[in-house]
Amino acid sequence: MTVVWQCQGVNPSAAPAGAVRQGSLRELNLALVLGRIAAAPRPPSRAALAAETGLTRATVSAVVEDLVAGRLVTEAEPQPRAGAGRPARGLVLAGDGPAGLGLEINVDYLAACVVDLAGEVRHHSVHRADLRPVSPADALGQLVRLAAGARAAADAQGLTLAGAALGVPGLVDEAGRVRLAPNLGWRDVPVPELLAGHPPLTETVDGVPPLVVDNEANLAALGELHAGDGPGSFLHISGEVGIGAGIVLDGALYRGTRGWSGEIGHIPVRPDGPPCRCGGRGCLEQYAGQEAILSAVGLTGADLPADTAPNRLAELAEAGDATVLNALHEAGAALGVTVASVVNLLDLDTVVLGGGYAPLAPWLRPPMLAEIDRRVLTAAWAPVTVRVATLGATAAAVGAAGSVVRRIIARPAGWLARL
Amino acid sequence: MTVVWQCQGVNPSAAPAGAVRQGSLRELNLALVLGRIAAAPRPPSRAALAAETGLTRATVSAVVEDLVAGRLVTEAEPQPRAGAGRPARGLVLAGDGPAGLGLEINVDYLAACVVDLAGEVRHHSVHRADLRPVSPADALGQLVRLAAGARAAADAQGLTLAGAALGVPGLVDEAGRVRLAPNLGWRDVPVPELLAGHPPLTETVDGVPPLVVDNEANLAALGELHAGDGPGSFLHISGEVGIGAGIVLDGALYRGTRGWSGEIGHIPVRPDGPPCRCGGRGCLEQYAGQEAILSAVGLTGADLPADTAPNRLAELAEAGDATVLNALHEAGAALGVTVASVVNLLDLDTVVLGGGYAPLAPWLRPPMLAEIDRRVLTAAWAPVTVRVATLGATAAAVGAAGSVVRRIIARPAGWLARL
Repeated sequence: MTVVWQCQGVNPSAAPAGAVRQGSLRELNLALVLGRIAAAPRPPSRAALAAETGLTRATVSAVVEDLVAGRLVTEAEPQPRAGAGRPARGLVLAGDGPAGLGLEINVDYLAACVVDLAGEVRHHSVHRADLRPVSPADALGQLVRLAAGARAAADAQGLTLAGAALGVPGLVDEAGRVRLAPNLGWRDVPVPELLAGHPPLTETVDGVPPLVVDNEANLAALGELHAGDGPGSFLHISGEVGIGAGIVLDGALYRGTRGWSGEIGHIPVRPDGPPCRCGGRGCLEQYAGQEAILSAVGLTGADLPADTAPNRLAELAEAGDATVLNALHEAGAALGVTVASVVNLLDLDTVVLGGGYAPLAPWLRPPMLAEIDRRVLTAAWAPVTVRVATLGATAAAVGAAGSVVRRIIARPAGWLARL
Repeated sequence: MTVVWQCQGVNPSAAPAGAVRQGSLRELNLALVLGRIAAAPRPPSRAALAAETGLTRATVSAVVEDLVAGRLVTEAEPQPRAGAGRPARGLVLAGDGPAGLGLEINVDYLAACVVDLAGEVRHHSVHRADLRPVSPADALGQLVRLAAGARAAADAQGLTLAGAALGVPGLVDEAGRVRLAPNLGWRDVPVPELLAGHPPLTETVDGVPPLVVDNEANLAALGELHAGDGPGSFLHISGEVGIGAGIVLDGALYRGTRGWSGEIGHIPVRPDGPPCRCGGRGCLEQYAGQEAILSAVGLTGADLPADTAPNRLAELAEAGDATVLNALHEAGAALGVTVASVVNLLDLDTVVLGGGYAPLAPWLRPPMLAEIDRRVLTAAWAPVTVRVATLGATAAAVGAAGSVVRRIIARPAGWLARL
């Protein structure tokens, strides 16, 4: 029965007696109004919110008062009005209330960022470190120190961290345990337990988990979904040492039966190709992973750390280095063969190159498109777009922080109850 | 606002004045009650339906009376009852009212079947003919004759064909036009226009299109979904001359951005392999399509028509024919490489072998599973099941007819209005 409240709002006077408790009614109306403000293309007035939600103007005003008092919403600067009369005042998400902490552990860097309710990145820091020789506990210790810096930066800006999400380059189960992260060498790492000994990263807010652990490619795809005006269905490919993908279908992340979708790096390109860390052979990572590209150029990760390698390779390609151009062509062709498989299977029309692939896109795209044109059954009359991610290398951490912010917007009563 | 009616039923007396017209109220309650009867594991009583739907017993009785009068529902034999009291009478879907006509055009056969509301196949006929040298108009003419036979068989059993669905081995757009069917050699074939000159295949029923054209692999996957008690997410692979797949996610067919998902036959297994009819190279069809298997055995489709080839190959394998065993091993390995790609991407745990693959499953499965174990990142702790389709070679036509039946169940008022 609650479905209807989410669609239309509830006027307490019009609701059937006893159908919904007053407490949950208020919660639903808070979420309804805040959701409309978050989704509105222009700051809506109270009158517009009443018209859209079906709530009375008095109810909308009371709800807005709570949201403003709780630093979730603020009055925007008056907008010029097309018709006659005074300019309408509009409401926008506040930039000085709760914020999300986004964290990322990758093969040779750690990242932390803070995103406010309005989606602005208020802090971002990267700590470069090869985490392969480091124990998971030590890596998480380094992460906690980076997160403490982010928390101090949030405090200094008057923001309150209301929850955290952590992206890792591997398979995560529902309890936040990393089942397998081949490129980190992690297997069955109980991340929440290992973090339990450290001071909490965030405040306790009802309805917002203190820490969600997720696959970094999933978080990057979510970040891209919410950052862009793009279509609701796309494949987002994050190229790091490993290659992960996030599949967004109709505006929602497709996670798979057990949450382990998107392992595009282990799709075989050539079934008898070079062995891969996963135990298979000829996986995409062996042709288009960052180390495969560096190796084709005669370099290793020791020469160029992963977070600087893409930009350095882009500089060399820009300068016309034939070896680099050839290596990028081969990587792009392997990506194209794999993407053709994905498009034939899922009928997606947009592929987004993110992470380390973003700066390399000018050289990866042409061979990718050539393979797609050649191999996708529908390519002749339904072309596939390959574009660069809006967020680039920061996507996973920003997507992680954004996922926290969206939880607060979906259930503002939890945050307000804390005050 | 209508969402709630679908969840809970509507007591006219309790509905707010003017919220829903009486006409649509009746339609919604008919659909609600019929849907519960269709989904119930045991024939439900009127009292159980009232308790489940929130409708009054008087409303349920009136609705059931309409459904029985319209030959949509009938009284089941009394069920023995666990507790005290008289055995309860239950309601089941009727087997003597409307039925769906399922049609299939494939590369070297045509099929027609009739499925009643209870899901029983009441008629099934196959007409063997190589359709590659035949014009689309002539092929559809043959189909119309086969459909006329199915209609006569339905009439003879007191069934009324209320709609038809046609499966084709190719890409279909929203208007029912076959954009491309590579193995038939069809390109931009306007099926509904070509059928317009023929007598109608079915009665006109409001809410049930007289003919829906769809991809045969999609219809086969839908047939399998509704025939089995299996999981809600699986990949169904139909092996014919071409290889198609239907992707079922959480109980719904995933169609893709433009309806062209599941073209698994054109996923490259070896990017530099033999050229394919699609313009690509090394597609799965070149290794595991029926003609590829026959060719590896030294036969062609001329020696063994596609509808008999799988059973003949199974006989030869059963007898230990080394060439056949080797050909099936190679085909199974190629299928395994491709399925590993799909599982790495989508995290599915069940693969169903349908169509011509069903009788060959004993020989295809072991090499498939070996490749899956080797190449799927999560295979070690989350095994993938490969099983044989429940419906086998009839899946597409039965799935097509079933899709018609489900439309009637979803909107019984359209059928009742006809009477």
